[in-house]
Amino acid sequence: MPKTLEFFFDYLSPYSYLASTQVEAICARTGAILVWRPVLLGAVFKATSNVGPATNPFKAQYLFKDLLRWTARYGLPELVLPEGFPSNSMKADRLGLVAQEQGRIERYTRAVYAAAFQRGQDIAQAPVLEAVLREAEIDPAPALARAESAEIKARLRVNTDDAVARGAFGVPTFFIGDEIYVGNDRLDFVEAALAR
Amino acid sequence: MPKTLEFFFDYLSPYSYLASTQVEAICARTGAILVWRPVLLGAVFKATSNVGPATNPFKAQYLFKDLLRWTARYGLPELVLPEGFPSNSMKADRLGLVAQEQGRIERYTRAVYAAAFQRGQDIAQAPVLEAVLREAEIDPAPALARAESAEIKARLRVNTDDAVARGAFGVPTFFIGDEIYVGNDRLDFVEAALAR
Repeated sequence: MPKTLEFFFDYLSPYSYLASTQVEAICARTGAILVWRPVLLGAVFKATSNVGPATNPFKAQYLFKDLLRWTARYGLPELVLPEGFPSNSMKADRLGLVAQEQGRIERYTRAVYAAAFQRGQDIAQAPVLEAVLREAEIDPAPALARAESAEIKARLRVNTDDAVARGAFGVPTFFIGDEIYVGNDRLDFVEAALAR
Repeated sequence: MPKTLEFFFDYLSPYSYLASTQVEAICARTGAILVWRPVLLGAVFKATSNVGPATNPFKAQYLFKDLLRWTARYGLPELVLPEGFPSNSMKADRLGLVAQEQGRIERYTRAVYAAAFQRGQDIAQAPVLEAVLREAEIDPAPALARAESAEIKARLRVNTDDAVARGAFGVPTFFIGDEIYVGNDRLDFVEAALAR
C-alpha cells in the first residue's frame, strides 16, 4: 500500500515555498501519495505560543542568507522577500483550497509562490491573486466568491486545527501517518521514511 | 591556502554534540583547519533576545524525536537528555578552554558529550566533570583551578562576544571567514563551501 505524505504549508512562508518545489518529485521517486494541506500559519503560531524566526532581528538577518543558499541548491531563481513580508495569507490560503476542489492546487501553488518569492509581490492584494488565478487557469471571479464560502473557511480551520492537534508548531510540517517532520530541511528524512 | 572552519558550540547543546561528531571528518575531507570555540549559550541568547527551542513545550516534544533521527543517521548511540536539561554549562565550557590549552579539546569534548547525551549525566556536577577530565587524560585538580583563572574566564567571554558580534544567535554556529552557517543541519552547506 502506498504511503501518504501530508504537506502542511502556508503561502506566506518562504520555507514552505522551498518545500513545495520538492514534494512532488519526492513522492514520484518513492511512490507516495501527496496531500496538500494549506493552513493559516498565524493561527498555528497563536495556538502554540510560537513566533516566526523573522520576528527576531538577529535571526532575520541570517534567514535571508539561508533562503538564498536553498534557492541556489534547488536551482530556483534567487529568492526575493515580498514587500511587507510577512503579509496576510488568509485569502491566498482559502483560494488554495478552491484550487484543490478544481484539481489545480499544484499549478495554483506554483503561481502564488512565484508571485511572492520570485517577483516579490504582495499576495494579500486582490490584483495579484487574480493574476495568479488566471495563471493557474482558474476563473478569478467565481473562485474569489467560493473562497468566502462557509465550506472553504471551515476547511482551512480544519487543516490548521488538525496540524496543531498532531504536533505542528509552524510550517512547513510533514506527516507520514503519525510521524511528524518539521521544516524544508527535513525533507531528506521524509524521503528516507517514504522509501522504507 | 587552507580554509578555516570555526565551530562555535556549548557543551549543554545537543545539536552542538551532533555537530561535534562530524566536524573533524568534514575538515579532513576538505583539507580545512578546525577551530573549536566554546561559548556560553546563555549569554548568546541574552545578547540576542533569543531562547532555546525547548522553552516552547510544542517544540520540545518534537525536538527529542528530531534528535533521535540525527543520532540514528550519524550512527551514534540513541540520544538521552540529561536530567535537569538544560544544565549550567559554564564550568564545562571553561574546562573546554583548559583542555584546548593542553591540546586535548577533541577528546575532552567527546568525553563531555558522551557523559551528557549518551549517559544522561549532569555536566554541572563536579564529580561528573572530574571523571570526564580523567577520561580525556587531563589531571582534574589543576584543570579545575585553571578553569577559574581570569585568562580562561576572559577567553570564554571573548568567544561568546565574537560569535554574537558576527551574527550568531545560538549554537552550533559555523563560520568560514565571514560566512555564517547556523545549526547541525547546515553542515552539508558548510562542507560544500569548504570544498569549493
